[in-house]
Amino acid sequence: MIEIECNITIKKEGKNYLNALKVNLLHCIQQTGSLSGAAKKLGISYQFAWNMIEEINSTSNTPLVVLQRGGVNGGGAVVTDTGLRFIKEYKYIEDEVNRLIGKIISEINF
Amino acid sequence: MIEIECNITIKKEGKNYLNALKVNLLHCIQQTGSLSGAAKKLGISYQFAWNMIEEINSTSNTPLVVLQRGGVNGGGAVVTDTGLRFIKEYKYIEDEVNRLIGKIISEINF
Repeated sequence: MIEIECNITIKKEGKNYLNALKVNLLHCIQQTGSLSGAAKKLGISYQFAWNMIEEINSTSNTPLVVLQRGGVNGGGAVVTDTGLRFIKEYKYIEDEVNRLIGKIISEINF
Repeated sequence: MIEIECNITIKKEGKNYLNALKVNLLHCIQQTGSLSGAAKKLGISYQFAWNMIEEINSTSNTPLVVLQRGGVNGGGAVVTDTGLRFIKEYKYIEDEVNRLIGKIISEINF
C-alpha cells in the first residue's frame, strides 16, 4: 500500500516556528491546562516541551502560550487567543494538503 | 517573513520509500550517469547514496536504478524508466502541494 505523508513546517524569518509536534503540544496544553500534563500526554520530557514553548514564544510577535509559575500542580499553562488561532490555521493547512494528497494518490501509480 | 515548507514522503507498505533527498539522488544519477558523481553533487558520501539506492530498490517492485560494477570510473548508474516516471510523479506532487501552499499563504495571517 502506498501512502503519501506531508510534514508541514511554518518558518518565520528563516526560523522553524511551527510544525506538527509543536501544534500538537499547543493542542495538548489547551486540553490539559498545564505544560507537564501536555508533555506527559505526548510522551516527551517536560524540559523538551518547555524548550519548544520558549522557541515558539520567542519567534512570535505575541506569546502563543502563557506559563503560570508556582501553585500546587507546578503552575498552569494557557494557550492565548493567538495560539488558538494558529492551531486552527495549521490544521486548516494540514486538511487542505491532505485533501490534495488524497486526490493525487488516486491519479498516480507508484 | 512567513514561509510554509512541506516535506513529502512516499511510504510503501509502511516503509519509507521516496522523499525529497532520494528523488534528488535519482535526478543527479540521471544527470551524471554515476552514483559517485551524484553523491558528490549532493555533498553526501558514496556509502550513504548507495544505501539509499539499496533501500529504494528493495522497496520497489522493479529497480529504479541499475548499478553497473567495474570500469575505469568505478561503474556507472542508470535510472530505469520506472525511476524516471517516479521522479516525474514526485515532482508533480511537490508542484501541486507548493501551488496550494502559495494559495493558502496569501489567505492566512500567521
